[in-house]
Amino acid sequence: MLKDNERLDSLIKENLKIIQNDDVFSFSTDALLLGDFAEIRKKDKVIDICSGNGVIPLLLSYKGNQPIEGIEIQPQLVDMAQRSFKYNQLDGRLYMHQMDVKSVFQHFKPSQYSVVTCNPPYFKENQLHQHQKEAHKIARHEILCKLEDCLMAARHLLKQGGRLYMVHRAERMMDVLTEMRRANIEPKRLTLVYSKLDRDAQTILVEGRKSGNQGLDITPPFYIYQKDGMYSEEMKGIYYG
Amino acid sequence: MLKDNERLDSLIKENLKIIQNDDVFSFSTDALLLGDFAEIRKKDKVIDICSGNGVIPLLLSYKGNQPIEGIEIQPQLVDMAQRSFKYNQLDGRLYMHQMDVKSVFQHFKPSQYSVVTCNPPYFKENQLHQHQKEAHKIARHEILCKLEDCLMAARHLLKQGGRLYMVHRAERMMDVLTEMRRANIEPKRLTLVYSKLDRDAQTILVEGRKSGNQGLDITPPFYIYQKDGMYSEEMKGIYYG
Repeated sequence: MLKDNERLDSLIKENLKIIQNDDVFSFSTDALLLGDFAEIRKKDKVIDICSGNGVIPLLLSYKGNQPIEGIEIQPQLVDMAQRSFKYNQLDGRLYMHQMDVKSVFQHFKPSQYSVVTCNPPYFKENQLHQHQKEAHKIARHEILCKLEDCLMAARHLLKQGGRLYMVHRAERMMDVLTEMRRANIEPKRLTLVYSKLDRDAQTILVEGRKSGNQGLDITPPFYIYQKDGMYSEEMKGIYYG
Repeated sequence: MLKDNERLDSLIKENLKIIQNDDVFSFSTDALLLGDFAEIRKKDKVIDICSGNGVIPLLLSYKGNQPIEGIEIQPQLVDMAQRSFKYNQLDGRLYMHQMDVKSVFQHFKPSQYSVVTCNPPYFKENQLHQHQKEAHKIARHEILCKLEDCLMAARHLLKQGGRLYMVHRAERMMDVLTEMRRANIEPKRLTLVYSKLDRDAQTILVEGRKSGNQGLDITPPFYIYQKDGMYSEEMKGIYYG
C-alpha cells in the first residue's frame, strides 16, 4: 500500500495510522493542536480546507461519527489521504476533494457547513527558499492559497453562526484577526501556544463565528514543553489521551 | 494640601505619593501594568493621554529624566494630578493639559512625540450603570473619548516610528488591534495579562509603532496572582521593585 519514500505513522490517541512522506508532506505539531482545539458536535457538518495528507479529518473522525470532507489542491497529497482513510476503514466517512480552495464558489452551494477547519500555508511568498521542494513550497507558502483565500472560502462554506477553527503563526496574528473580521467571521476564542516558558508565543489557535457578535475570549496559554524540556501534561494529553 | 475625601497613596517602587479620591478617580492595577510595560529611552518625548490623576506620568518619571506631559479632560483630575506633581517636587518635569483628546489636532503640531501612553475608558457607553458617579462614568466609559478618538490623537501626536503603549480589556482586543492598524499604528508587541492560572486573560498590553512594519511579538503571559492567591513574583516586582 505504501509508495516510494512513504511511511506509516501513528496517531496514538486516535488509534489511527497515517501515510506520510517527508519529501512531500508530513503533519506538524500544529495539526495536532488544531485537531484538539476544534470542537465537533453531533450534528455538525464538517469540512477541512488546505487538508494536506488528511491529518485533520483523521483527527476529527475520533471526535464524532459524522462524515468529514477535506479539500486539498495537490493530487499526490489527496492520494495519500485517501489511502490513509482506506487503511483505517474510514473511507466511507472521510472524503477528499482534489480542488483549489479558490474554486469552492463554483463547486459548493453557499452556507452548507457548520464547521470549517484550516491549517493554511503560513509563510508569505516572499519568504520562499529556492532549494525547497515544490510540494513543500505549496504546502507552506502562500503560493496557491493566501490567508484571504482561505477565509473567503470559509465564509462561503459556513452557515450563519458556523465555526471556523484555524491555526497560524503567532507573528501573523494581526493578519489572521483582521482578515477574519473582514470575512465576517468574528474571532470569539483565542489560544496562544508557547513552546517553552519565557519565550514568545509561536502559534495561535483561533475560533471564529460567521456573523458572530463582537467579544473575544482569550483562554489560558498552552505550553508544549515544560521547564525540563519534556512535553507538558496538556501536550501529552493531545498525543496520548 | 488634601481636599475633602482625598487621600495620599504611595507608589512604593518609585518612592512617590499620589492623591486619590475614590469618589472621583483612583488608579487600578492596569495603570501599574502600563507603567511597567512602557519603555522610555533617554531621548524620548513622552505624552500620556486619558491621564486621570496623573498616575502614568508619575510612574514614567521614575524611568527617565525628561519632561512628561499628560492630557486629561476632567478639571478635578487635572487639579489632583498637578498637586501630586508638586508634592513630589516633580512639577518642573511633569505637566498636565486640561483638554479633550479630540482637540489635540488644534493644540499640538503633528508628529512631535516619540512615545504616547494611554489607559483609556474601557467600557462601551451602552454598558453604563445609572448609579455610577459622573466622574467614574467619564473615566471608565466611552462617553467623551472612544477608542478611535484615542488612536487618532496618538496618530497625530506620534512621530513616524514613534511608539504607542496602551492597556485595555482582553475581550476588546479585536477592536484595539483593528483600530490601531486603521490609525497606521502597527501592533508590534502584545502581552496578555491573566489574573490567575487557568482563567481567561482579562487585560492586554500592546505596543504599536506608527508606520511600523507588520509582524507581532506575543510575549510570555503575565500573571497577577500565583496559585495560592498571593501576588506573583512579577507583580511584586512592579509594586515593590
